[in-house]
Amino acid sequence: MKNKFSLYIDKLQESITSHIETLDGKSKFKKDNWKREKGGGGLTMVLENGNVFEKAGVNVSKVYGELPHSMAELIKTNQSDFFACGISLILHPRNPMAPTFHANLRYFELYENNKLKDSWFGGGLDLTPYYIFNEDVVHFHKSCKKICDKYNETFYQNYKKKCDQYFWNSHRNEARGVGGLFFDYCRENDKMSIENWFSFITDLGNIFLESYCPIIEKRKDMGFSDKQLKWQQIRRGRYVEFNLLHDKGTLFGLRTKGRIESILISMPPKAHWNYNLIPESGSQEEKLLKILKTPKNWI
Amino acid sequence: MKNKFSLYIDKLQESITSHIETLDGKSKFKKDNWKREKGGGGLTMVLENGNVFEKAGVNVSKVYGELPHSMAELIKTNQSDFFACGISLILHPRNPMAPTFHANLRYFELYENNKLKDSWFGGGLDLTPYYIFNEDVVHFHKSCKKICDKYNETFYQNYKKKCDQYFWNSHRNEARGVGGLFFDYCRENDKMSIENWFSFITDLGNIFLESYCPIIEKRKDMGFSDKQLKWQQIRRGRYVEFNLLHDKGTLFGLRTKGRIESILISMPPKAHWNYNLIPESGSQEEKLLKILKTPKNWI
Repeated sequence: MKNKFSLYIDKLQESITSHIETLDGKSKFKKDNWKREKGGGGLTMVLENGNVFEKAGVNVSKVYGELPHSMAELIKTNQSDFFACGISLILHPRNPMAPTFHANLRYFELYENNKLKDSWFGGGLDLTPYYIFNEDVVHFHKSCKKICDKYNETFYQNYKKKCDQYFWNSHRNEARGVGGLFFDYCRENDKMSIENWFSFITDLGNIFLESYCPIIEKRKDMGFSDKQLKWQQIRRGRYVEFNLLHDKGTLFGLRTKGRIESILISMPPKAHWNYNLIPESGSQEEKLLKILKTPKNWI
Repeated sequence: MKNKFSLYIDKLQESITSHIETLDGKSKFKKDNWKREKGGGGLTMVLENGNVFEKAGVNVSKVYGELPHSMAELIKTNQSDFFACGISLILHPRNPMAPTFHANLRYFELYENNKLKDSWFGGGLDLTPYYIFNEDVVHFHKSCKKICDKYNETFYQNYKKKCDQYFWNSHRNEARGVGGLFFDYCRENDKMSIENWFSFITDLGNIFLESYCPIIEKRKDMGFSDKQLKWQQIRRGRYVEFNLLHDKGTLFGLRTKGRIESILISMPPKAHWNYNLIPESGSQEEKLLKILKTPKNWI
């Protein structure tokens, strides 16, 4: 499974970055191979200052070795060795009418005396709009639900709820965005073999682009004002706040002394902080805030 | 002491904001009075989009009541009631040749059955340049040392070292800026009565402006390029990283559900993240990074 999934994420990285380059039409991805001192490494690919994307990052990592103490604590285990691999994506478009997209898929194995003791998948995908276009959010959630429903009728509602809970900026009492799916510790069970999970996870990976690209195609050339661009940057400040204050992946990466530039790849290119900004009553900006305060069902 | 120091920080806020307004010559401070649900409140004053200052924040808070659990844990006490008051300052100038200034002074009391059980002062001041002008940093540190030396010959070296340790972005292995002073738990002892501490703290408060203003006067009208402005915004990204990942005051405020806009008043107006930016060899930007990697003695 470890080799199978490793191979899958390599191919997904290749195909996604190639599509993003074509869609962008200007900038190309830079590739950075990196090694982890205590075992493994990864390939970080970043595109900056594009036509369509202000920043796009696609990172694959495959790390293994002795389980660091802080990691053992986080996943509550006594096992001594691990293997983990995953792909993560962040797409920050230039146009404030287009949403930011984030996704990741990961697989984890734990060993004791070289014997596999536990394994599971995790991941998710979520959307962060700066302006709300209902049809975009509905399209995104429908794409998520379509895959979920192939496997289990409860998946979409469960993982959608987990996503709303996870991407919650508790210090501001608002969601980071309009959610999507979030799941973790997906282990073999009565209903789903590890092969079934692999199939679910890769089905999701395969629709990343179709869940997002139709939206970006529609929004990338829309007109916008300086005020709307500033609003995008203020909301990207909230993205920064989430990633540095709450995101477990980021904090975990920092605690385990991961490669900083790969961990912080999700940071938006530009962020803005304004003191106590309150959007005008009835404005599109206020509409967004209302939706983020109480996550809604889009389907 | 509590009343005396409360009065002092009110006056200091008034005098500092009035000086900053004069120096800025364009923008005025907005005043926000706020109340803390469980006791006390504060006055947050913010100036934005000035001639000289992109953002200036001066916050006074006076809070009291039952000691929140998370606070008791942080300061390692069993006492049940507290009073805390303080002033904090953040000055983010527009010109990248001018450094950001941050300072705060605070006083804390703990009670059991309405009886005073413990009290101490804390605070500090520090400078975050984007470009290094030796004479500026030396002037700033000399101002700090002058006050320290009036009280104890060891203060400057001790508090300078504590400042370098505290404002350390451990995930990047570099200092936030060029330091200054940082001290906490300044309690009555053989050498310093609480009155002596009050005198030390207020002496420091009184030189905030003279430690910083001569620098801003020299730098505020210097020419700069777009590239230098971008560098300022990248370094302000590091400021954001420090405040959200490491700053105890910020994390403490968030955990105790303080007023968000007052806690995050220190956030820079604009921040920029570039993937894996490495300054050119021999550049001024590289010179800054070298200094931040190994904090030096300026006097």
